[in-house]
Amino acid sequence: MYDRMQELSSAQMTKVHDASMELLGKAGIVINDTEALEIFKKNGFKVEGKKVFPTETQVRDALSKVPEKFAIEARNPEKSVSVGGDDFVLLPGYGAPYIIDASGDQREARMEDYDTFCKLIHTSKHIDMNGWMMVEPGDLPAATAHLDMTLSSILLCDKPFMGSPVSRQGVLDGIEMAGIAWGGKDKIMDKPVSISLINSLSPLQFSEEMLGSLIELVRHGQPCIVASLIMAGASGPVTLAGVMALQNAEILTGITLAQLVREGAPVVYGSTSSAMDMKTGGLSIGAPELSKNINYTAQMARFYNMPSRSGGGLTDALYPDGQAGAESALALLNTLRGGVNCVLHSCGILGSYIAMSFEKFLMDEEICGMVRQMIKPIDISDEAIDIDMIAEVGPGGQYLTHPKTFKLCRSEFYMPDLMVRTNHDAWTKAGRLKIDEVAGSKLSQRLAKYEKPDIDPGIEKDLAAYVNSRKNA
Amino acid sequence: MYDRMQELSSAQMTKVHDASMELLGKAGIVINDTEALEIFKKNGFKVEGKKVFPTETQVRDALSKVPEKFAIEARNPEKSVSVGGDDFVLLPGYGAPYIIDASGDQREARMEDYDTFCKLIHTSKHIDMNGWMMVEPGDLPAATAHLDMTLSSILLCDKPFMGSPVSRQGVLDGIEMAGIAWGGKDKIMDKPVSISLINSLSPLQFSEEMLGSLIELVRHGQPCIVASLIMAGASGPVTLAGVMALQNAEILTGITLAQLVREGAPVVYGSTSSAMDMKTGGLSIGAPELSKNINYTAQMARFYNMPSRSGGGLTDALYPDGQAGAESALALLNTLRGGVNCVLHSCGILGSYIAMSFEKFLMDEEICGMVRQMIKPIDISDEAIDIDMIAEVGPGGQYLTHPKTFKLCRSEFYMPDLMVRTNHDAWTKAGRLKIDEVAGSKLSQRLAKYEKPDIDPGIEKDLAAYVNSRKNA
Repeated sequence: MYDRMQELSSAQMTKVHDASMELLGKAGIVINDTEALEIFKKNGFKVEGKKVFPTETQVRDALSKVPEKFAIEARNPEKSVSVGGDDFVLLPGYGAPYIIDASGDQREARMEDYDTFCKLIHTSKHIDMNGWMMVEPGDLPAATAHLDMTLSSILLCDKPFMGSPVSRQGVLDGIEMAGIAWGGKDKIMDKPVSISLINSLSPLQFSEEMLGSLIELVRHGQPCIVASLIMAGASGPVTLAGVMALQNAEILTGITLAQLVREGAPVVYGSTSSAMDMKTGGLSIGAPELSKNINYTAQMARFYNMPSRSGGGLTDALYPDGQAGAESALALLNTLRGGVNCVLHSCGILGSYIAMSFEKFLMDEEICGMVRQMIKPIDISDEAIDIDMIAEVGPGGQYLTHPKTFKLCRSEFYMPDLMVRTNHDAWTKAGRLKIDEVAGSKLSQRLAKYEKPDIDPGIEKDLAAYVNSRKNA
Repeated sequence: MYDRMQELSSAQMTKVHDASMELLGKAGIVINDTEALEIFKKNGFKVEGKKVFPTETQVRDALSKVPEKFAIEARNPEKSVSVGGDDFVLLPGYGAPYIIDASGDQREARMEDYDTFCKLIHTSKHIDMNGWMMVEPGDLPAATAHLDMTLSSILLCDKPFMGSPVSRQGVLDGIEMAGIAWGGKDKIMDKPVSISLINSLSPLQFSEEMLGSLIELVRHGQPCIVASLIMAGASGPVTLAGVMALQNAEILTGITLAQLVREGAPVVYGSTSSAMDMKTGGLSIGAPELSKNINYTAQMARFYNMPSRSGGGLTDALYPDGQAGAESALALLNTLRGGVNCVLHSCGILGSYIAMSFEKFLMDEEICGMVRQMIKPIDISDEAIDIDMIAEVGPGGQYLTHPKTFKLCRSEFYMPDLMVRTNHDAWTKAGRLKIDEVAGSKLSQRLAKYEKPDIDPGIEKDLAAYVNSRKNA
């Protein structure tokens, strides 16, 4: 449809593709994992030391095997999701080491915060999937925290969850635990029950942890998002066109490796590359350049006929204020209008990924709900228009007490949870709460009502036993 | 392009059009102005009492005369604007009786507030045109306030301005004053130097003031936005499809009248119809239903080959908080992506049009700047991609000190005026300012630097003399 957002022509996307291939041929890409290098070699790829040089034919061959769409099963089958095509899933924030609380203070995140996010996701009307490392629990040993997080992800929420791509072992632990939950590892080998985030190390590298994780995930039938996060002007070129070519080279290499490990492996084309802030030298995720890239990323993924991941409720603000609202809304609306399939960071992020905020989580949920309503098509049938009714009400008439208004108002109109729609007097009488304060009051009500979803007690015991045995190994 | 926002098919838009025509045939539309009724009668329209019943042929004939695009000249020719096609103009908030200040208090607006908005618009990087009645000055007599506002609009800002459609006399005063500014009324008869907002009175009515204003504006060559503001479920049907048919009937009637007064009169197809809030019974302008209608309005205007007006930075929040940021950003991005040409209410609105806020004005300006950057196409040439440079930097390299980064970073990246992009420590040291507080501090700096734009002293004297003579008449 007519849209002022830039639509890339097929020729432009081909140019980006060709540039990526030329780049891989000229510079190669550093693969910091012995098994991954072996896989490339075995399949006839040119390898020099740690550098791999994929060719057009090799990449095209791999791309031809990528599924356009796949499902991720939840332990509550009603909550299974579909990734690809017109479908989309909203996921929470990811990887934040800190919590910013209602007073604006920043503190290290703890395991209890992780659990609280699992509870919020379980009870969310708008978030479709549980995340991974919504916060990094600073109170747990780094070597085993992934076990506790995976346990909470499975027990506290019955939506599909994200995997733990912290290392080969982290992935294998996640697979074992999913196997317990689904009654055997063989049950999930051809059935995605999680999705995991594999990031490149820009420019033109992949770390050993990420490569090992990717290989084990794919080997066990679990989908990967292969994503790049370039900071334009620092870890990538200053132009967005250059960023697109560079990130595309990285993503295509990861996706190619996945297809070499297992043909037809479900993968997602991902990027959240953005601009460097020129004053601080830091990454800006509220930057409009990221919203441009969100749209280009979705277009490139469609060009390759595969699902995309980008965007979310992204902001550089350090508090759920007007900046957080504006930046998150712009990014989220761009993400969903642009056709992104996997929306990580939909809720909760503050300060360029540094922190999660419970109040911001609820605020972002409302934005998710609003955007869902915006993109929901309306019915333009004779019945929906109902000319006879409008003619009957006539000039100067009123519709407030019309039976049709009563009948349809709840299905036609979005009912906000947090947004203030009163007048100034009523707002003043209610204490002039700003939306972050409204969110704070709703938060405690919601957590008070949380109920842990049912699970077979045997499975719960086995999961706990697995975690304990691994901790004591 | 691929977009999850609903694209109406030609068949769906034809259905809306046909429904509007059927409605006008069945119910008619009440025209509360003697001259307007005479014009319709004289042109062979069926008129019964105050009701007019336009036919398909009569409306189509009028529509065929509407220009697709037109220019509005500013007294500073560098600031003239174009309305229609891919071009858009951003205008400030309109019609608010109150100011909500930085403390959240609401007070009656005064003429000095109006003047302050003129100064902000004059110095705005993002607002293209001066508005009309950004606030309603409660300290001036209602009968003559339009004279003071028009004088300020012309003197304090050299961008194109909006006209005063308060009454026939209000319009004629505006024409006289524009005539003084342009060296004679004959100079503007075929040259738009203003645009004015003509609203229907839903359902299916036009007031005497609006009709008289429309006739005089068109007669003097000045463009009109013909707009409808239906509250779905109160002054219009509960379904958006019904609202579309009803508002279309109203808008087409106004546009038809304009073409009967003067063939080829520049007009704009406008709507900001939205939903009723089910809890308060009031109009919600932060509602996602309005953002849907923004898109449909732009599509219907393109269907008729004429410019559109909708949207803006719209919110129900009573303070520039996270809600204001989120709602305004959603509406503004939808407006600009959707292809709207005339964006009234881009900056400053709070509380469902009840108030303007200076801090919100600056916050919305930042959103306008970000959206402009988002929709600015990028260059995907070989030079912009620059594969040799990326290959040379190579795996693990850095771009921060690369000459190209220095050369292009200011043109490639949007530089925010208000948005915080520091870390938590720096934010804390700076006093943990939220964006509304940052806006407050920028506001006084900006107003302190304001300089009144040059104008011929003779013109300024004549304008003041006109205002005085009319006040003493």
